[in-house]
Amino acid sequence: MKHDLDARLAEHGLDALVVVGPGGHNPALVYLTGGPAHLTNAWLVKRVGQAPVLYHWPMERDEAARTGLSTRSLAPFSLRRFLPAAEGDAFRAQVLQVLALLDDMGLHRGTIGVTGRVELGPWLSLWQAVQQARPDLRVEGRRAHQVLSAARVTKDPDEVARIRRMGALTVEVVGRVAERLQSLRRGPDDLVYDAAGEAVTIGQVKGWIRRWVAELGGELPLAVIFAQGYDAGVPHSVGDDAAALRAGVPIVFDIFPQEAGGGYFYDFTRTWSLGYATDEVQALHAQVLEAYDAALDAVRAGQPAAAPFERACDVLEGYGHPTSRTQPGTQTGFVHSLGHGLGLDIHEEPRLAQGQTRPLEPGMVVTVEPGLYYPERAIGIRVEDTVYLGPDGHPQVLAAYPTDLVLPLRG
Amino acid sequence: MKHDLDARLAEHGLDALVVVGPGGHNPALVYLTGGPAHLTNAWLVKRVGQAPVLYHWPMERDEAARTGLSTRSLAPFSLRRFLPAAEGDAFRAQVLQVLALLDDMGLHRGTIGVTGRVELGPWLSLWQAVQQARPDLRVEGRRAHQVLSAARVTKDPDEVARIRRMGALTVEVVGRVAERLQSLRRGPDDLVYDAAGEAVTIGQVKGWIRRWVAELGGELPLAVIFAQGYDAGVPHSVGDDAAALRAGVPIVFDIFPQEAGGGYFYDFTRTWSLGYATDEVQALHAQVLEAYDAALDAVRAGQPAAAPFERACDVLEGYGHPTSRTQPGTQTGFVHSLGHGLGLDIHEEPRLAQGQTRPLEPGMVVTVEPGLYYPERAIGIRVEDTVYLGPDGHPQVLAAYPTDLVLPLRG
Repeated sequence: MKHDLDARLAEHGLDALVVVGPGGHNPALVYLTGGPAHLTNAWLVKRVGQAPVLYHWPMERDEAARTGLSTRSLAPFSLRRFLPAAEGDAFRAQVLQVLALLDDMGLHRGTIGVTGRVELGPWLSLWQAVQQARPDLRVEGRRAHQVLSAARVTKDPDEVARIRRMGALTVEVVGRVAERLQSLRRGPDDLVYDAAGEAVTIGQVKGWIRRWVAELGGELPLAVIFAQGYDAGVPHSVGDDAAALRAGVPIVFDIFPQEAGGGYFYDFTRTWSLGYATDEVQALHAQVLEAYDAALDAVRAGQPAAAPFERACDVLEGYGHPTSRTQPGTQTGFVHSLGHGLGLDIHEEPRLAQGQTRPLEPGMVVTVEPGLYYPERAIGIRVEDTVYLGPDGHPQVLAAYPTDLVLPLRG
Repeated sequence: MKHDLDARLAEHGLDALVVVGPGGHNPALVYLTGGPAHLTNAWLVKRVGQAPVLYHWPMERDEAARTGLSTRSLAPFSLRRFLPAAEGDAFRAQVLQVLALLDDMGLHRGTIGVTGRVELGPWLSLWQAVQQARPDLRVEGRRAHQVLSAARVTKDPDEVARIRRMGALTVEVVGRVAERLQSLRRGPDDLVYDAAGEAVTIGQVKGWIRRWVAELGGELPLAVIFAQGYDAGVPHSVGDDAAALRAGVPIVFDIFPQEAGGGYFYDFTRTWSLGYATDEVQALHAQVLEAYDAALDAVRAGQPAAAPFERACDVLEGYGHPTSRTQPGTQTGFVHSLGHGLGLDIHEEPRLAQGQTRPLEPGMVVTVEPGLYYPERAIGIRVEDTVYLGPDGHPQVLAAYPTDLVLPLRG
């Protein structure tokens, strides 16, 4: 959690964290500002034992102030100021700019961790040049990420509340989609028609989803998966916008909205079959639900992070399916891991996957998402919830929603 | 342009580009794939004289194939494969993974440029370790960015068409907002009321904007500015969601939608005053329009990139305003530069700013956005269009929209 940050810095031998980049869609900076904030390019320094300081450009002074952090203007550090000393060389001016900023931050020696979601190329060269120019200051990348991951892996109550709110948004949207789909009519050709007699496409459904997520204050920066038949059988296929909806075919609906501006995510999947489901799909769906229950039961503080994966594999292998445990690299059966931590990144620590010995802890937020995939049989099934390990070490699903496979068509 | 890439690589002494990260919201990768594509983590290699090759994880094989590029599966490069040789050390396994990938790409020696929009910390350490492990291969960051910037600074017809489509979306949304606002009623208190007699807030207006942008297939990853009075006077203030709309006060509406998933941007600003405008605001708005016209006239192939800025300053200084040319760091008057290149990044090359000697070229897409800011007088005014330098070297506004200041309230 955030209040552990000083201990984590000390543990990793860092005197300070320096985080760069925009104020949104930048997990490390959003974590430390409590944002997202509309900052084009900011710098944040967090020294051991001291409160963070946010450096901002003057046009963004009010956005910076809104974070409630101590702020400092970047006005005295404009690139133009350093161009003469750099003899007009923009890169050398940037190096001088960073050195001046580090001076202002009081970072003359010791070890600092730098990170931020930015364009790698220029920043790689810049920090290498800063390192050469200041040999008494050790610049570390990986350790910055480790410190932040270690803090972020357990969520404080405010973070859980924000993820829960995104969960409420998610199930509201999913409910609206289900209701709209159920108002449709199944044609004799198994296509699905609206009141005007037009076949409904996946692209239209995604349009509803995008509009409703935006209307409720979220965004979908990483797309949305609404994939039927063969596409459902390939876990990360987003689905074919041009394809018409078909009754009796499994549809994987995987939605991962984020707070507008780049904040906390939610992650959720249901598998639906419109109008009716084949016996085969019903049987596989029931197996996935059984694997889900077994996995959820192993999401307990003290259990190794691999345990929920192992439990899901036990169930699905018992039904004769290949899993990534029995057949690494398989593209049929249970082809992926069980889940992942979730927060300001859609995928973060811990990984609920084979070989993960790290014990689960109260405060973690993870997904539980077993699935079965048989693309050549036009079948893909996945059921996913986002789960919080409460202070008692037990799992709480952060947004409840029915797992029904069949959506009856009433239109 | 993209077809210049081989020449640019040679010019910068690079044998190949290696781009990492997700398939969307990652300008370098989106540029080379023509995406955005739903790829969680991909690798792309572009060697001089050869077509790019996209490496993808197996679950994303269909998304990768959709780009039309040559693809290769990352399945043989799973981290797990390298853990035994790394004696269980995850970082060493990652280094071995990258070395194996570089071998597969045929990159054993020479100079490669690496970039991608990723988390800086871990990638900084990773490439440093790779560099140490492979001294015959020189790893460059900055040059990768320079090559891509040099190619991206002029747009090919397909890119211009995509930016133009986002322009059409933008003015459609702006038109809907104007229409909705004009249906409102001005109260005797100068607040603005809807048909139900409720005062309308900025938060509500932003809700309409978000919904309409999403409905039309765009997203707003960097927020939207709808700022009135004092907030309008601070260029990057996004506005106060809780504030009620007021008649007779300037509102800066700056909207920069992006293609869903992280593709091309558009950038557009109008200043509105609901119901009526004060004489002072009318006069300043007319001056900004005059500066806009003068600046647009200087957006010509062969002109230095500073010229449009200088022309706008000439006009505004003529009316007695401070500018960032006469008073660097001023927070009143014309406080910023004239504009910026726009494409897969909202801010890219060229900068239409003081001292920029680079000549403008056909194919560039830039914003033209003069403004005047007097926050203490509750005034901010900015007018912005996105402009394409056509093959004839003349500017074309990519989405036409009236610049009227006053929106009459008809409700």
